[in-house]
Amino acid sequence: MAQVAIIMGSNSDLPVVKGAIEQLKQFDVTYEAHVISAHRTPNQAENFAKTAKERGIKVIIAAAGKAAHLGGVIAAYTTLPVIALPIKSSLMDGLDSLLSMVQMPSGIPVATVAVNGADNAGILAVQMLALADPDLEKRLEKFKEDMAAAVMEKDAKLQEELKNL
Amino acid sequence: MAQVAIIMGSNSDLPVVKGAIEQLKQFDVTYEAHVISAHRTPNQAENFAKTAKERGIKVIIAAAGKAAHLGGVIAAYTTLPVIALPIKSSLMDGLDSLLSMVQMPSGIPVATVAVNGADNAGILAVQMLALADPDLEKRLEKFKEDMAAAVMEKDAKLQEELKNL
Amino acid sequence: MAQVAIIMGSNSDLPVVKGAIEQLKQFDVTYEAHVISAHRTPNQAENFAKTAKERGIKVIIAAAGKAAHLGGVIAAYTTLPVIALPIKSSLMDGLDSLLSMVQMPSGIPVATVAVNGADNAGILAVQMLALADPDLEKRLEKFKEDMAAAVMEKDAKLQEELKNL
Amino acid sequence: MAQVAIIMGSNSDLPVVKGAIEQLKQFDVTYEAHVISAHRTPNQAENFAKTAKERGIKVIIAAAGKAAHLGGVIAAYTTLPVIALPIKSSLMDGLDSLLSMVQMPSGIPVATVAVNGADNAGILAVQMLALADPDLEKRLEKFKEDMAAAVMEKDAKLQEELKNL
Amino acid sequence: MAQVAIIMGSNSDLPVVKGAIEQLKQFDVTYEAHVISAHRTPNQAENFAKTAKERGIKVIIAAAGKAAHLGGVIAAYTTLPVIALPIKSSLMDGLDSLLSMVQMPSGIPVATVAVNGADNAGILAVQMLALADPDLEKRLEKFKEDMAAAVMEKDAKLQEELKNL
Amino acid sequence: MAQVAIIMGSNSDLPVVKGAIEQLKQFDVTYEAHVISAHRTPNQAENFAKTAKERGIKVIIAAAGKAAHLGGVIAAYTTLPVIALPIKSSLMDGLDSLLSMVQMPSGIPVATVAVNGADNAGILAVQMLALADPDLEKRLEKFKEDMAAAVMEKDAKLQEELKNL
Amino acid sequence: MAQVAIIMGSNSDLPVVKGAIEQLKQFDVTYEAHVISAHRTPNQAENFAKTAKERGIKVIIAAAGKAAHLGGVIAAYTTLPVIALPIKSSLMDGLDSLLSMVQMPSGIPVATVAVNGADNAGILAVQMLALADPDLEKRLEKFKEDMAAAVMEKDAKLQEELKNL
Amino acid sequence: MAQVAIIMGSNSDLPVVKGAIEQLKQFDVTYEAHVISAHRTPNQAENFAKTAKERGIKVIIAAAGKAAHLGGVIAAYTTLPVIALPIKSSLMDGLDSLLSMVQMPSGIPVATVAVNGADNAGILAVQMLALADPDLEKRLEKFKEDMAAAVMEKDAKLQEELKNL
Repeated sequence: MAQVAIIMGSNSDLPVVKGAIEQLKQFDVTYEAHVISAHRTPNQAENFAKTAKERGIKVIIAAAGKAAHLGGVIAAYTTLPVIALPIKSSLMDGLDSLLSMVQMPSGIPVATVAVNGADNAGILAVQMLALADPDLEKRLEKFKEDMAAAVMEKDAKLQEELKNL
Repeated sequence: MAQVAIIMGSNSDLPVVKGAIEQLKQFDVTYEAHVISAHRTPNQAENFAKTAKERGIKVIIAAAGKAAHLGGVIAAYTTLPVIALPIKSSLMDGLDSLLSMVQMPSGIPVATVAVNGADNAGILAVQMLALADPDLEKRLEKFKEDMAAAVMEKDAKLQEELKNL
Repeated sequence: MAQVAIIMGSNSDLPVVKGAIEQLKQFDVTYEAHVISAHRTPNQAENFAKTAKERGIKVIIAAAGKAAHLGGVIAAYTTLPVIALPIKSSLMDGLDSLLSMVQMPSGIPVATVAVNGADNAGILAVQMLALADPDLEKRLEKFKEDMAAAVMEKDAKLQEELKNL
Repeated sequence: MAQVAIIMGSNSDLPVVKGAIEQLKQFDVTYEAHVISAHRTPNQAENFAKTAKERGIKVIIAAAGKAAHLGGVIAAYTTLPVIALPIKSSLMDGLDSLLSMVQMPSGIPVATVAVNGADNAGILAVQMLALADPDLEKRLEKFKEDMAAAVMEKDAKLQEELKNL
Repeated sequence: MAQVAIIMGSNSDLPVVKGAIEQLKQFDVTYEAHVISAHRTPNQAENFAKTAKERGIKVIIAAAGKAAHLGGVIAAYTTLPVIALPIKSSLMDGLDSLLSMVQMPSGIPVATVAVNGADNAGILAVQMLALADPDLEKRLEKFKEDMAAAVMEKDAKLQEELKNL
Repeated sequence: MAQVAIIMGSNSDLPVVKGAIEQLKQFDVTYEAHVISAHRTPNQAENFAKTAKERGIKVIIAAAGKAAHLGGVIAAYTTLPVIALPIKSSLMDGLDSLLSMVQMPSGIPVATVAVNGADNAGILAVQMLALADPDLEKRLEKFKEDMAAAVMEKDAKLQEELKNL
Repeated sequence: MAQVAIIMGSNSDLPVVKGAIEQLKQFDVTYEAHVISAHRTPNQAENFAKTAKERGIKVIIAAAGKAAHLGGVIAAYTTLPVIALPIKSSLMDGLDSLLSMVQMPSGIPVATVAVNGADNAGILAVQMLALADPDLEKRLEKFKEDMAAAVMEKDAKLQEELKNL
Repeated sequence: MAQVAIIMGSNSDLPVVKGAIEQLKQFDVTYEAHVISAHRTPNQAENFAKTAKERGIKVIIAAAGKAAHLGGVIAAYTTLPVIALPIKSSLMDGLDSLLSMVQMPSGIPVATVAVNGADNAGILAVQMLALADPDLEKRLEKFKEDMAAAVMEKDAKLQEELKNL
């Protein structure tokens, strides 16, 4: 049974969206993923959103580009938290997607991450699940320590590079 | 029976939207208007869009601000032409509304007019109806002539103003 | 006899514009296409716009980039609905074209679609024609169903891809 | 003991931020609020973020304007979900705040809501808490129904207003 | 007989445009001014542009807002230099007007000045006329000296203000 | 003796700027070109601007990118008309160059053309010179006719291309 | 003898610029201020910049709006550090000023602060002077502590305000 | 002992940042460089900033992209001047980085240079150090003369290129 559902407008979005999938896998969080279009399959979108909770989904990640309505349309039909992942598309490097997602009207929030910020969409979902899962919480802390260590390794590598400059 | 349906996210949008209503009235085009929210009343939006055609509606005008999904959500459920009217709201004078409306993905067009361009939303609806209504077509031509005459009157008035400059 | 006329500033725009042509062909809507420049051939633009209606044209699609005046110049001379297709050009991925087209003053609407949104320009033209053509209307409904089916096929394909992730 | 902590750069932000507080109150979610500046009181920000979890805080809302680093700075020190609320300030209606918050680098997500979208910051926090609180979940569903009813009341009111147009 | 013609979309633009008129008057350059709309009175625009040269006009100033096509439409019909004056209107303080004017395609230049930069539109016209008028050239040099003197007077005034700070 | 002077910040700008040179050549207008930097060779810029008129220069074209001050700096020292050509550089396709050039303060106009619009910079210079040169005026009219003919040829070519679509 | 020179395009900028003056006064840093225009008084600008160092000036603050060339023009003539203060003016809340100042070409830096960020222009000048003035350095540390204390007082005040919410 | 410290979010920034290093080397200014992330290694950032002064660092250059908090976070912990170098990243050619850096709140300045303007970050640091180092000051003057000479060489080369045009 999946804890997180990821939906995207097209499977051509998968190269970006898989950043979120990889984060969920790394934390052993179960997930499902679907191609659903707010505009081309509105009934599927509605049905998905209305039944997500009863199917055990806890958090939904919605990835879309251009006039990116997917996050808002899903949030209209569920009280589960919806994370919006704007995909870089045609106009001004995704400013259209970002504004279409983040500027939601009062009452229907979506939690927006950076344009193409798929990793963060996944990690944010994990943070939400960790509120009721102390083990996941501990792994998040470990993840944070690993990130810091990786930066420090990069710094060590930089010291080598500087010698050759 | 209404030929044009105007929907808006809130009745606080009426001061802008009434520009469209006045144009429809001037051309004796019947209309109905509703407050429908893509996010707060998604079932009403769906039901409205799915039944519009059978109720005799020919053209739909959707007015919304911020992450303005209303036009796209309606267009998802109907094959009637949908005119999107972006409302000037919080960010950069309505750039968020404009991009949320105009940047629709392939397959689901909405016909977008200027930010707060309510007059033009109404006139565009009349132009579409006139394709099958020769009388309306004649009145559009008269309207165009009247606009030209009004500009020429303004020019005459300007000549007076210039004398006092 | 053509029902839809497509005009573009240069035949170098054809790779984008043909998206509209393909949609019209798919719906068996007759069309004509011309290179007309609002600025380099203003007399041709005027003549085209003034005679379009009597030649049986119902809808005009105007594609242009940069300071994209073509839609507005055509709309100035006709009461037919004009669909504006902004072409992505030099500045900020076509924001210049988009604003030059969509921000029309009161009285002279153009129906603007997404930057490079040629498919939607074609489909929107079909939707307008369908208002007086029940057969076309039925084909639009079929088109909508086909789009939904295509998304569902993409979802099925995604399930396969997920297994290999 | 507070479940949600709201921090803001200055108490002059309170008129906006109280939208979040009112939502939390309406759902009987306990909260605390503080003026903390990422730049002027970095030690307090660090200390707040490092101790939030052990003090029982589940979700943090960070409100800031201009080069709005508060959300990111807090997220650097905790694994709790951080909701970023961009405050409309000097440049382009808060585009600076929005981009400074939403464009977080990989590994450190913040969940960004609309510019001045304080209501949604509060509701999003409630949605996260509701993942482990079935009673809160029911109240969110009730809230959604109330919103829909309020829109339908607005529609009824619009019908009255239309008569006087 | 006028040397410079100023055209504007509406006489409501006069409060801005009169900055240009005042500069022309100050240099004793003869002028005429008209309300002409590229979209509402395209025939008048065409006729104005085609006859301007034979009526002795040397330079044309075109002021317009929103999707500001007036400069381009006039330039399409004449080889006289056209100065475009973008008027601050609805979107992003006139960015729509500016881009609609300045981004002209190759072959049809318009000389664009700042948004609401009416003074400079007038002075630029004078600079062009001065190319063949040595007396006007001398007055431009005097004008430049007067501007410098005015700045130096402001500096003297600032020294007084600083004492009271 | 040159009638038009073209200055650019670097000879790496030549691939863009030569569009202006080609236009001047085509009209047999004499020109000179120089690399001058407003910031790196301010004394050369000043000296160039102060002596341009006495050397017979009639019009100056200034091409620059990024914080493009070259046009303004030259205009500060001369009453000759200065045409500003913004070069597409690092930020948002040259929006930085465009705004740095076009938004000049009152009293010191520069005549700005499109980003990378070198052709138009050259043609605008020719239009200014033609005010006192009836032969040049006639060639501009011929140029306009040739452009129209070229568009009509493109249209003929399009008709062929359409057959193969 | 002044250590810091503040120049501005007009004394109408004083209400903004005095934020910088107040900071300098608070740190007992001597200053002078002048109205100098890069475009209207270029000779004064050049003379000011060339003689600043020998007159004992250590840091220059240049405040300007619109196409804000003042910082760059001064920096062209001196090797002293130049702090650029963009003034909010006509377009997009000062984005034109900001880009005109910050996007300087390689070799001629200006140190840009926020739009209308006069306080920070003053404090940055003090930080530069403090590099060679240990007493000033200590006062900067005290200033930082005072800012932190002021935020903590604001937090205490917020706790009172929350009781009345 | 280093006089200037350069920090960057990742060693993948080195290709841009080395422009600053090369400038420092050319002026024989000692430097150190580190990979430090405001978000992934906040403790390292704090520790670096708090100890920089006592280790003899005079100026800090902070390079970062996207929601670029690094400059602000460092400036929060030190009174040394901090130069912010926005790195061109995902959105609108680095507008996100630029605004996240330059729009700092009152009290905590960072001196921002152009997007990817690494050379200028280095030269600005040298200008600050030169305030207390007459020899460095002389070398800056020499550097300015060399830049001017290089532009004049480019002009000579342009004259050759023009012959072949």
